[in-house]
Order: sequence, then C-alpha cells, then structure tokens
Amino acid sequence: MSKVSERAAIILLSGGLDSATVLAMARAEGLRVHALSFRYGQRHDHELRSARRLAAAFDVVEHLVVNIDLGVFGGSALTDPAFAVPHERDDSEMGEGIPITYVPARNTIFLSYALALAEVRAADEIHLGVNAIDYSGYPDCRPEYIAAYQEMARLATRQGVEEGGIRIVTPLIELSKAEIIRAGTALGVDYGITHSCYDPDEEGRSCRTCDACILRLRGFAANGLTDPAEYQG
Amino acid sequence: MSKVSERAAIILLSGGLDSATVLAMARAEGLRVHALSFRYGQRHDHELRSARRLAAAFDVVEHLVVNIDLGVFGGSALTDPAFAVPHERDDSEMGEGIPITYVPARNTIFLSYALALAEVRAADEIHLGVNAIDYSGYPDCRPEYIAAYQEMARLATRQGVEEGGIRIVTPLIELSKAEIIRAGTALGVDYGITHSCYDPDEEGRSCRTCDACILRLRGFAANGLTDPAEYQG
Repeated sequence: MSKVSERAAIILLSGGLDSATVLAMARAEGLRVHALSFRYGQRHDHELRSARRLAAAFDVVEHLVVNIDLGVFGGSALTDPAFAVPHERDDSEMGEGIPITYVPARNTIFLSYALALAEVRAADEIHLGVNAIDYSGYPDCRPEYIAAYQEMARLATRQGVEEGGIRIVTPLIELSKAEIIRAGTALGVDYGITHSCYDPDEEGRSCRTCDACILRLRGFAANGLTDPAEYQG
Repeated sequence: MSKVSERAAIILLSGGLDSATVLAMARAEGLRVHALSFRYGQRHDHELRSARRLAAAFDVVEHLVVNIDLGVFGGSALTDPAFAVPHERDDSEMGEGIPITYVPARNTIFLSYALALAEVRAADEIHLGVNAIDYSGYPDCRPEYIAAYQEMARLATRQGVEEGGIRIVTPLIELSKAEIIRAGTALGVDYGITHSCYDPDEEGRSCRTCDACILRLRGFAANGLTDPAEYQG
C-alpha cells in the first residue's frame, strides 16, 4: 500500500456544494475516503442523489447512507412540513438569530455516527463542510463547537483512550462561499451535480430564492461564474 | 401547572437496571420525564419490552423509541453476530481494557438524539445511567467524558447559545451496583421488569454468566436480596 493511501477519513457528504468541496480537497490530499450520508426526513431526496454522484465521481472507498429519524422530533422547516421555508430574505434577515431551517442537534448527531464509523474503520479524521461565515446563525457550525466536539470525541473513543484521538477537520470553516467555489473549481468539482436548495421542485430544480440558493448564486457571481445547477423557470 | 411539574428531563431508558433507577429518581424529584429508547440492532428486543413497562410504571409524559442502525458499522458483540458474548469471566478479565460488548460511540449517539429532543421539548436536563465503577472499561462512561459532552452540548444548541445550556445528569456515576439497587428498591423500582443480560434465551430469560448478569446478581446479593429477574434453568 502506498504512503498516500494509508490515511483514511470519514467525510460527511450531504450532496451540497460545501461537502462536495471538502470531498475534493480530501481526495486531492490522497486520503482514502469513507463517505457518510444521512436520510433524515428531509422533505426531498435530491441531496442524496447528488451525494451518490459525488461519491462515484471522487472514487470513495465506500459510501454509507444511514437512515435516521429526526422528523419524529420536529422543530425545523427542513424536516417538519408544518414549517415553510423562507424565501427572498435580505442580508439582515438571513443574519438574524437562529434560522428556522436549523435542525435540532443535526451536526451533533451526524458527527456521532461519523465517530462510530471512524472507530470501526480505524480512521483518525472526520471532515465536514461547516462554515462559520454563511451559517453564523447555526450554533453547531461555529469553531468553538467543533473544538468542543473534538475534545468530547477524544474522551469517547478507543482511539482517544488508546491512541491520539480523532481530528475533526473543517477546511471551509473560515471561507466565504465565493472562496469555497473557487477552491472546488480548481480541484475539478462539477457543481452541476451538487444540490443546495432548501425548496426544490419535484424534478430537483432549485428555487433561486431560499437562503441556500441566494448564497450559492452570489458565490458563483463573485467568481464571474455561472452556477451549473438546474434552476426553475 | 404546579411548581414540581415545570422541570422536564429527557431520560435515556434502556430498560436495564441502571436506567430504571435513574427514571425512579427523576420521578421522585417531580420531574416531567420524556423517555427515550433506541432500537439499535441489539440482537434481542427484551430490553425494549422492559423500557416500555418501566415508562408505563413511572407515568412518563412520552416514551419515544428511535430506530438507529449501529449494526451497519459492526464492531461489537452486542450488535454484530460475528462476535460472541463472553461468559463466566472473572474480575480481572472484566476489568481489563475495553470490553468486546462496547458499542462504538453508543453513548455519544444516544446523547445526541437526547439533545435534539431536549431542544424541541425545551427540556434543560438529560439524565442517563452511566456508571464509572462497573463499566470502567467503556470510555464513554467516565465522568470526564460526560463533562466534555455537556460543554459540547452547551455550544451546540439554542439553549446553550440563548440560555443556560443543558445539564447532563448522571446520578449513578459513582455508585456501586449494590448501592444502585438499594436506592432503586427504596424508590419502589420493580427490578423484575428490568433487563440486563447480554445473552438471554428466546423468552428473554437471563443467562447468569455474562458480565451484566454477574454484576447484577452480585449487587442483589450484597443487599441480601434475591434478583427478581427471570433466569434460565
């Protein structure tokens, strides 16, 4: 086995623009990637289709899709049909408080499954595409949360007890959306197969007007690029 | 609403002796209890039957059973049929290293669901029956792990960001099995409806010889009590 293939990482792969970029970065470093996605009561399945395409495009070792039922808990526009996804919000509205698209403890649950998989596969790293710039309203996207998670993970696991612990790697955490898109484009990410929209139509075409679409479209525009995702209308 | 009913707690209820005692303690304090159990690829379903009986006996507000698939990750005698549950181990064997009955990241995953439920139900406490005495080999049963989890949870959640954070309460962590049984007996726990055995027969009768049975039987004996659980033979 060659040197570059010895390091293994678990990557949380949602199928969105950010996790696609994280995957490309890890593969560019020569990491063996175990991709982990979740079916968690999203109101649509387009993200998972994107995750499968990305996993194939970047030649991962395996791609696991774990069913988890966050929907039983309710409480978010992304999992509970009683809430409506907000559209056409301006910057002050997007920056205000914790958004309704926040899913309770989502990253904590996702990371916990990643931790289990890291133990079983003897991977020392978990990579995820959290971002403290565009998602400042989500408590579980902040650097201090990630640092606390890593410390907890060190104490939670065999690796932590018997070896050096598991690193939580967040290469995008301080990048703007424009910088993420620039980095991913340089690494050959086909953003046409990623999915970001919170409220797509039945064919999976993006709405242009939810927070995720607004941020994404701005990021491509800032790079002088056209977003290759399919949009409605 | 009376004063005593205003505090709400999420309780991780496995159906075992320890979580039954934690439930009894919380109800004795007048807490409203949201019980949370998991179907996680255990090789038997007797624990969940016990959890349902305990939830009813202690009049919880709700009892949620969440399906999670730890079995896909393998790696433990409790979820992977390729491993055998060890029997008739002596104290030195039980005390040695991390046992094969350890499930990767189990408490971390369970607590993460509890955290999501705590957010949605606006509960400020999560109670669980971890114990650092009998389960010293499990990294995720130690006080330093619990403290790190609480700090991570504070940073992960709306409660943590906007209010005082969520407390992780572990009333049994420094108790011996005999002390746990003494406390629960005083609170009226019917240990006959709890289940501890790692390797029961098809009718749910306990084996007497796995680590869990050995520790449990000793705990009753130390109190001069007979374990009311059903045993084989």
